[in-house]
Amino acid sequence: MERILTGDRVTGKLHLGHYVGSLKKRVELQHRMETFLLLADVQALTTHFQDPDLVRRHLRLVALDYLAAGIDPEKAVLCVQSLIPEIAELTVFYSMFVTVSSLRHNPTTKSEAEQRGYDDLYYGFLGYPVSQAADITFCKATLVPVGDDQIPHIEQTRKIVRRFNSLYRPVFEEPRALVGDTSRLIGLDGNGKMSKSLGNGIELDASAEEVREKLKKAKTDPSRIRKDDPGHPGICPVFTYHEAFLAEEAPEIRESCERGSIGCTACKEKLAEGLNALLEPMRERRAHYGAKPAEVDEILQSGTARARGIGRETMREVREAMGIDYFGR
Amino acid sequence: MERILTGDRVTGKLHLGHYVGSLKKRVELQHRMETFLLLADVQALTTHFQDPDLVRRHLRLVALDYLAAGIDPEKAVLCVQSLIPEIAELTVFYSMFVTVSSLRHNPTTKSEAEQRGYDDLYYGFLGYPVSQAADITFCKATLVPVGDDQIPHIEQTRKIVRRFNSLYRPVFEEPRALVGDTSRLIGLDGNGKMSKSLGNGIELDASAEEVREKLKKAKTDPSRIRKDDPGHPGICPVFTYHEAFLAEEAPEIRESCERGSIGCTACKEKLAEGLNALLEPMRERRAHYGAKPAEVDEILQSGTARARGIGRETMREVREAMGIDYFGR
Ligand code: SF4
Ligand code: SF4
Repeated sequence: MERILTGDRVTGKLHLGHYVGSLKKRVELQHRMETFLLLADVQALTTHFQDPDLVRRHLRLVALDYLAAGIDPEKAVLCVQSLIPEIAELTVFYSMFVTVSSLRHNPTTKSEAEQRGYDDLYYGFLGYPVSQAADITFCKATLVPVGDDQIPHIEQTRKIVRRFNSLYRPVFEEPRALVGDTSRLIGLDGNGKMSKSLGNGIELDASAEEVREKLKKAKTDPSRIRKDDPGHPGICPVFTYHEAFLAEEAPEIRESCERGSIGCTACKEKLAEGLNALLEPMRERRAHYGAKPAEVDEILQSGTARARGIGRETMREVREAMGIDYFGR
Repeated sequence: MERILTGDRVTGKLHLGHYVGSLKKRVELQHRMETFLLLADVQALTTHFQDPDLVRRHLRLVALDYLAAGIDPEKAVLCVQSLIPEIAELTVFYSMFVTVSSLRHNPTTKSEAEQRGYDDLYYGFLGYPVSQAADITFCKATLVPVGDDQIPHIEQTRKIVRRFNSLYRPVFEEPRALVGDTSRLIGLDGNGKMSKSLGNGIELDASAEEVREKLKKAKTDPSRIRKDDPGHPGICPVFTYHEAFLAEEAPEIRESCERGSIGCTACKEKLAEGLNALLEPMRERRAHYGAKPAEVDEILQSGTARARGIGRETMREVREAMGIDYFGR
């Protein structure tokens, strides 16, 4: 069976954009593949080291988002990055044979470097792809679900794996990118993708009322003044949500909008209903787990323990391959 | 009691230069201070990742050098860097708030960068001062014995400690440099310092015969053609050894040489005798431990276990200070 490694930096609660972009897919995949879901708190600290409290608070909130969305702790392994020292150990080992130059050429680093100046980057930030390789390989994941913009990241991991295998002994399989339909969800304001920092999203823990309120303020086709003006769904953020969440009814909405036979208010109400139907079971699961924080902690702790067991075995092989298994097992 | 952290990258056997420069001092210090002696195999791999076998072989040889030189495993904690994951964890945490710029300005990195070009450095090599800070802090060392050329390294660790303490909570004391008389021993060929790569040294495991043979070939004052020519000890490598190892007799040697009343052959023989008197008890201890590799392994394993215990406690405090001690102890 394929093993996948996926997860999120725990810098904020998850929203509908995360659901469409990755979470929905993970909920499906957990039934077919051995799923490792990493709560990446160390990588969150890479950019938020000045605010560890934010990371602390979000660890359990994101875990709750996962469980609410339908991640089954009996199937997927939920694990906490900072509690898996094997990831740090692999990061240090890989650091030895990755050049500064190759890290500078990582697209994400490049754009950050353009903003901040290369010298001013933090060392850990520069090494992000190295720690990502450690995340993927500590549990020997064979597949990594990504959006197509993230293919270069996986390529860097593959390069590190090839280098390790040829320097020492073939311990790792080259992980492959599982490129999915992770088209990014547009924000309610129509400005770029839905994101926490832009405050233009609907979080997965939003109440039915909040969903309706947020949608009321969402941007629509600005040329529709009266409700029977013909609309242009192609430029309407609300319509992209219809397509993303209510695909079956979307053609009908498109037609009604273009004909001017549905007003934006009614259109948004239909969407709110659909979204709330999607979110309702999540709310139930959230209420269940939310009332039992000890159960969530237990899930995280036992998932982390399981991940560590695998990480330890990986490190044993790594040490053996490098010939630094001085005292045997 | 002060706690010191010291050690060596295990890339080669130790020679007389190491003895004079640091080992002798450590043997003294172990009685007055809690001594952690780190066999730095990970840092050895930073430059020797292509030859892990060299590191593997030297781990036990360097341990044997320590024990032969008089390090007492009942007093000093001998520990293996790659078996202390807490060091890797701290390296990753510190990486977050150390800038690439500050690492570039490290003098050692600078000179390496001049040779190789900055972009071509390995990421782990660039991060050397970060991992050094992790070495020093995992066991909360308060003093680090160094030569005066290494003060900038300790300064970098102090900076990291201050940053950590102010970002989170004061967990660490700023370690101080214990600047000792670590004048470097010149090589037998008179060209720069004694070093393994130049092949101009006398290793601590040299036999009495080897010591004599090596000294025979050592450079002396080239102006002495006949044995009664007045000599210039100030430019003679052999004389620096007299000063370093047989300080009491050195003034007499100086005088005899300057007067032309001692020939170089006789002078070297005196030195050989003195060195062999120093090395003889080391040979005995080496023979003892050399015959019992399991005992040496046991020393390294129990020292590493002790170091890990302290490292685990440090990480507990670090996690607590950062607020990422999610599940308590
Ligand atoms: S009717 Fe719906 S799709 Fe058409 S512009 Fe209004 S909100 Fe957008
Ligand atoms: S007599 Fe000794 S000190 Fe003088 S030049 Fe010869 S070796 Fe050097």
